Amino acid sequence: MKENTLLVVGSVALDTVQTPFGKRKKALGGSATYFSYAASIFAPVSIVAVVGKDFPSAHLEALGKRKIDLSGLERAHGKTFHWEGRYDYDMNTAHTLKTELNVFAHFKPRLTGAQKEIPFVFLANIDPDIQMAVLEEMKKPRLVAADTMNYWIENKRKELKKMLRCIDILLVNDAEARALGEEINLLKASRRILSMGPRILVVKQGEYGVTMFSSNSNRRIEIFSSPALRLETVVDPTGAGDSFAGGFMACLARKREWDLRTLRSAVCLGTVVASFTVEGFSVEALSRAGKGAIAQRMNVLRKMSRWEEIKW
Amino acid sequence: MKENTLLVVGSVALDTVQTPFGKRKKALGGSATYFSYAASIFAPVSIVAVVGKDFPSAHLEALGKRKIDLSGLERAHGKTFHWEGRYDYDMNTAHTLKTELNVFAHFKPRLTGAQKEIPFVFLANIDPDIQMAVLEEMKKPRLVAADTMNYWIENKRKELKKMLRCIDILLVNDAEARALGEEINLLKASRRILSMGPRILVVKQGEYGVTMFSSNSNRRIEIFSSPALRLETVVDPTGAGDSFAGGFMACLARKREWDLRTLRSAVCLGTVVASFTVEGFSVEALSRAGKGAIAQRMNVLRKMSRWEEIKW
Repeated sequence: MKENTLLVVGSVALDTVQTPFGKRKKALGGSATYFSYAASIFAPVSIVAVVGKDFPSAHLEALGKRKIDLSGLERAHGKTFHWEGRYDYDMNTAHTLKTELNVFAHFKPRLTGAQKEIPFVFLANIDPDIQMAVLEEMKKPRLVAADTMNYWIENKRKELKKMLRCIDILLVNDAEARALGEEINLLKASRRILSMGPRILVVKQGEYGVTMFSSNSNRRIEIFSSPALRLETVVDPTGAGDSFAGGFMACLARKREWDLRTLRSAVCLGTVVASFTVEGFSVEALSRAGKGAIAQRMNVLRKMSRWEEIKW
Repeated sequence: MKENTLLVVGSVALDTVQTPFGKRKKALGGSATYFSYAASIFAPVSIVAVVGKDFPSAHLEALGKRKIDLSGLERAHGKTFHWEGRYDYDMNTAHTLKTELNVFAHFKPRLTGAQKEIPFVFLANIDPDIQMAVLEEMKKPRLVAADTMNYWIENKRKELKKMLRCIDILLVNDAEARALGEEINLLKASRRILSMGPRILVVKQGEYGVTMFSSNSNRRIEIFSSPALRLETVVDPTGAGDSFAGGFMACLARKREWDLRTLRSAVCLGTVVASFTVEGFSVEALSRAGKGAIAQRMNVLRKMSRWEEIKW
């Protein structure tokens, strides 16, 4: 196993999504899927997840072609997790129409011996008890990141806080950070979250980009903000956050230490990778994103945020 | 008259504002006030506006102490423009409770001979007919910027578009840019707005910062995004946009040409000046902001947005 291998536990799903630009029925989706597609551009990835008997073999082949390790992907009796949602012209808000957990309802992650040795771990947005169960199986993870959502913040706060004590990085969106920190002011919310365990908090802000809060050695908070790329066409924002996490973690997996310079560059790589995801339904656009196109957009992002002071 | 003098036409008002942090009754407010307070830190400012007989002389003295030229401030019979509003915990949205135009309802701007010679002009958010009337009085403005709002976009689109043909820079917020461009995608909206006249569009995005769109010589759009500073306490966001405009325009007034480097630095200076405004009611915090504190926050802002790529 390569030393930059990533493990992701989360959903591999079928998504039915409607946006002003069209519709897809039961297309490949899920947090572990988007994460793997994104991260596999740069590093080996291994999935822990479950699908049902209805899961199309074409999807398995597509994942396999990207060298994504599926040895931890359980095929259970029953149907695959199915999410149905709609986005209106304001693409910042997903309207969930249906959530059919199916085989995901009784998912108990089982890691292979090799998976337990993987150094980089991403606990995608699932029940914090499952996130903890995976973490307890890991032998010596070097860096652990997690995502969560309002449902767990409201209904499993105790379990969530237990999980937070065991991770290095938390990635959530703006509203989730405020809910978890119980504070509308994002700086104050971030201070509270950083006192719960993680030393790095990455707040995803949709079309406004990403703000990262990190504790330095003096317990002071360092802040980094990257804008998102301004795209001509946003077709479907589903999976942007998990794609971001994939690019971000794959960048960190190339390093032995994670100083601010590395973390900032990782935020920008995640931002660029996510910019491809939203240009198509499912993984359609993301799957075509190559290193050349990514490097080009990294240049665009750099130009967008660079400035120097002139004297006034 | 100094060659970096700024003229602003807009409101000098009394504001009654309630936020989760307290309340102020009939405190000094108005777009021309915030603009002048901000810009006067760096450059001479001259106001074109109207107040009523009830306008406290203490406010006039405070403006005068900042060397803000009040020769174009009319004192009319009647009451001063009065705005009453409320902000809840989500400080991004102002809820207007009352708008009493009073003397502002029949305001006809009259410029002094000296004011007509001023090279830098800011047309704050007022009736586009009044904006145009001021512009037609100006002898040879070197740079003209304007603000507007949804009310004029919806109800005076024709007059607004006439004004837009005569200005260099438009400053609006996110929702206004989308409404004016009749397009939810901000990049597409910006392209439409830039085809209406201004060659620079500055989109204010509240706590997410500012994005500037500008046409280059090849008619391609250059984008610059600056985050806002993350503040421990936001007391009252009223006036942030006009304070931004004051810092932004004062920075440009120091230059003879406005290349991207200058424009970007001006956006950042505006961002920093606005960060003081929101830390207090009315102009309470802004009035205490000195060049030293501003320089310090410019450094914070630079650190927040700087990154360099590491190889992945």
